[in-house]
Amino acid sequence: MTRFKAEIDVMPKKEILDPQGKAVTGSMKNLGLQAIENVRIGKHITLELEATDETAAQEQVEKACKSLLANLIMESYSFEVSAI
Amino acid sequence: MTRFKAEIDVMPKKEILDPQGKAVTGSMKNLGLQAIENVRIGKHITLELEATDETAAQEQVEKACKSLLANLIMESYSFEVSAI
Repeated sequence: MTRFKAEIDVMPKKEILDPQGKAVTGSMKNLGLQAIENVRIGKHITLELEATDETAAQEQVEKACKSLLANLIMESYSFEVSAI
Repeated sequence: MTRFKAEIDVMPKKEILDPQGKAVTGSMKNLGLQAIENVRIGKHITLELEATDETAAQEQVEKACKSLLANLIMESYSFEVSAI
């Protein structure tokens, strides 16, 4: 068994309005950061797992994303798995 | 002016307990994903900005992180800026 680390990003889908991101975009103007636009806010998740190989680790992370970490109706996810 | 995209990760610091991550680690067991441990949950933020060059873009993103996106007492941040 090898130990792997996964870095997962879960973001609101492009078609979905992101009110938190919109609010932050507005606040940027008040801070003098007028050049900043299109702020979108999602989740960054890190986790560790043991698996026989990288493919098995990716399958487990995929399952975790689909069943718990991302709401596939509103969010999309991407991840990278690497041995540690 | 060039247009840049920034990908920012804001994570709870290692010394800080992450109750949301702990709860998710527990739920993984119930889903048959016993191998998954040390789940930590932070924010992933994407934004776009116009700047004269990459250094100027990085400075603006740094300012945005310090003044608004991350709570430096409890969170640390990292980011990548790239031209689009």
